[in-house]
Amino acid sequence: MTKGRLEAFSDGVLAIIITIMVLELKVPEGSSWGSLKSLLPKFLAYIFSFIYVGIYWNNHHHLFQVVKKVNGSILWANLHLLFWLSLMPIATEWIGTTHFAENPVAAYGICLIMAAVAYTILENLIVSHEGEDSKLKEAIHSKFKEYISIIFYILGIAVSFFYPYIAIGFYYLVALIWLIPDRRIEKSLKEN
Amino acid sequence: MTKGRLEAFSDGVLAIIITIMVLELKVPEGSSWGSLKSLLPKFLAYIFSFIYVGIYWNNHHHLFQVVKKVNGSILWANLHLLFWLSLMPIATEWIGTTHFAENPVAAYGICLIMAAVAYTILENLIVSHEGEDSKLKEAIHSKFKEYISIIFYILGIAVSFFYPYIAIGFYYLVALIWLIPDRRIEKSLKEN
Amino acid sequence: MTKGRLEAFSDGVLAIIITIMVLELKVPEGSSWGSLKSLLPKFLAYIFSFIYVGIYWNNHHHLFQVVKKVNGSILWANLHLLFWLSLMPIATEWIGTTHFAENPVAAYGICLIMAAVAYTILENLIVSHEGEDSKLKEAIHSKFKEYISIIFYILGIAVSFFYPYIAIGFYYLVALIWLIPDRRIEKSLKEN
Amino acid sequence: MTKGRLEAFSDGVLAIIITIMVLELKVPEGSSWGSLKSLLPKFLAYIFSFIYVGIYWNNHHHLFQVVKKVNGSILWANLHLLFWLSLMPIATEWIGTTHFAENPVAAYGICLIMAAVAYTILENLIVSHEGEDSKLKEAIHSKFKEYISIIFYILGIAVSFFYPYIAIGFYYLVALIWLIPDRRIEKSLKEN
Repeated sequence: MTKGRLEAFSDGVLAIIITIMVLELKVPEGSSWGSLKSLLPKFLAYIFSFIYVGIYWNNHHHLFQVVKKVNGSILWANLHLLFWLSLMPIATEWIGTTHFAENPVAAYGICLIMAAVAYTILENLIVSHEGEDSKLKEAIHSKFKEYISIIFYILGIAVSFFYPYIAIGFYYLVALIWLIPDRRIEKSLKEN
Repeated sequence: MTKGRLEAFSDGVLAIIITIMVLELKVPEGSSWGSLKSLLPKFLAYIFSFIYVGIYWNNHHHLFQVVKKVNGSILWANLHLLFWLSLMPIATEWIGTTHFAENPVAAYGICLIMAAVAYTILENLIVSHEGEDSKLKEAIHSKFKEYISIIFYILGIAVSFFYPYIAIGFYYLVALIWLIPDRRIEKSLKEN
Repeated sequence: MTKGRLEAFSDGVLAIIITIMVLELKVPEGSSWGSLKSLLPKFLAYIFSFIYVGIYWNNHHHLFQVVKKVNGSILWANLHLLFWLSLMPIATEWIGTTHFAENPVAAYGICLIMAAVAYTILENLIVSHEGEDSKLKEAIHSKFKEYISIIFYILGIAVSFFYPYIAIGFYYLVALIWLIPDRRIEKSLKEN
Repeated sequence: MTKGRLEAFSDGVLAIIITIMVLELKVPEGSSWGSLKSLLPKFLAYIFSFIYVGIYWNNHHHLFQVVKKVNGSILWANLHLLFWLSLMPIATEWIGTTHFAENPVAAYGICLIMAAVAYTILENLIVSHEGEDSKLKEAIHSKFKEYISIIFYILGIAVSFFYPYIAIGFYYLVALIWLIPDRRIEKSLKEN
């Protein structure tokens, strides 16, 4: 089966997720700058989630560059990833409206870690479907970034119940690690 | 006529349907875990519908893999399918807010059965347009899954007026039957 | 310039228009069938507009089948068409909430006639860009359907101030005329 | 890396941005024409923003016509542009609900200028990635339109605190400059 529609559908879902988050930024009552102040935590949460969904789109893009064929399991693993990402808008709004309170920040972290797990499952299914000696296998053999992300997420969720801002710091670190899209794949593509 | 835009438009509509359902999950008032509890039935309904729309996208994807050309009737049969699926978000919200009450569960089942009927019409139109000896004809000759689904939906709707949770069980069974995307088509593609 | 992205963007906008209309169907308060009754006019309006947007998508699809190249004017004529269609959700909601009252039905007709005018402009620009002896020129030389539609819309708008249901009848007639997608183009494609 | 998905994702996001703005046009209470009057400023703001997003889509389309390959930096520069454009719906609603008040008009201008800066960054990254002697380099060598736009935006924002309608005039002028999509690229494409 061809990968075209999986990419198109994922692009659609990610484009909608990234854009409906902005709908939560309700317009302030008055026209003074002060009336914007109450939007600030929501706006910061929006920027944060925009970057996160952007990272997932970017890496999804990179991942499927090397994919040649898909099967039923890969389609479902992809939907599983999209499911967790689809919870980002509500998780974002919860941390925004509660000004980054303990439980919401933990819930946000749970969304992030589940998305990371779903992404890893997707990666593994693709590698096993592409075959052992595929370009992807080579490209992502170390999995270092995947492991360090999971560890940082766990630390973030654990610490969120006491110091939610430090938890956000951990999530932010993971974002930084991934902000640079998977150069491993870009490099591997160039070599071939 | 080429099938590219029919696929793109369907992907767009399905991507939006699957994503706007999450907008119904309104953020809870407070930041305690307890405040999430009232979201639970809505969340379960969301997962359920996410899987259902996912199944339709998956099978739509499989179905059009073997399609070579489309005509006006196929375009409208496809829009007819999308119409019934577009009612999923509101049906989902209704079962969610009423905690799976009798009538909403029946209404949800009616949406599902109409979508199933629309899908079968689409399949038949495609087979007759592709020609009798097409790969699709071979692939879906038995129609066993289609018939059993319709029967389970009817049972589900009938029972929903008395025991809505058993109705959900019937709908769930149909989902399980289809969760595995149409291997018949995948197999037939491989053989050729 | 290639036409690929114009098609993709139009598919996206039309997919969103057709799907956000369903968001206006607010879930009823209770779980009785009676509570659905207040949804009925909105639901009818939704079906009507779904068919109309479907017709536009269908004909847009047919129209661009024969297009080989686009230019800046065509891009803007297309956006102009999408602008009028983007007003369909609000026009639909207005006729739905006011139970097909006089002014809303007239406003709905104005949206429809403006979309029809925009579509005709787009068609003309494409014909003149494709060249006089293009397949499209041949295919749509009569313009009979376009003229009869405009006349029916004008009659509909005029009558809407007195008998809005008759106006809806006129709009419905136009829909019927176009429901069969542009066979002229399909036929012309087959001949070549 | 291929540019296909970057285009598809951008088309998706822009299609959603342009369409969700219409959701802010809440249906009036009654069915009289008078009840539409309160919608007028919002409607004007919608038209204005529709044109602006249309301009960006148009120029994005033109820009990527000459692009052959993309890299990680271009993906992020593109997301950066989409971020600022994603704020258009809320900025539009703010100027609409406050009837083009001072601060909202300034905020709207800030969105526009940031989008213009993001677009320029994207252009530069693409030129440097495509290579010095690329067609794009030739096509956009003068950058006159980019500079005059930035100047008009700054003037608009400065004047918005005193005469917001004159500020809108400045933004409108920039729109006029760009309404004609980048003929430089179209011309350069024709020559080659």
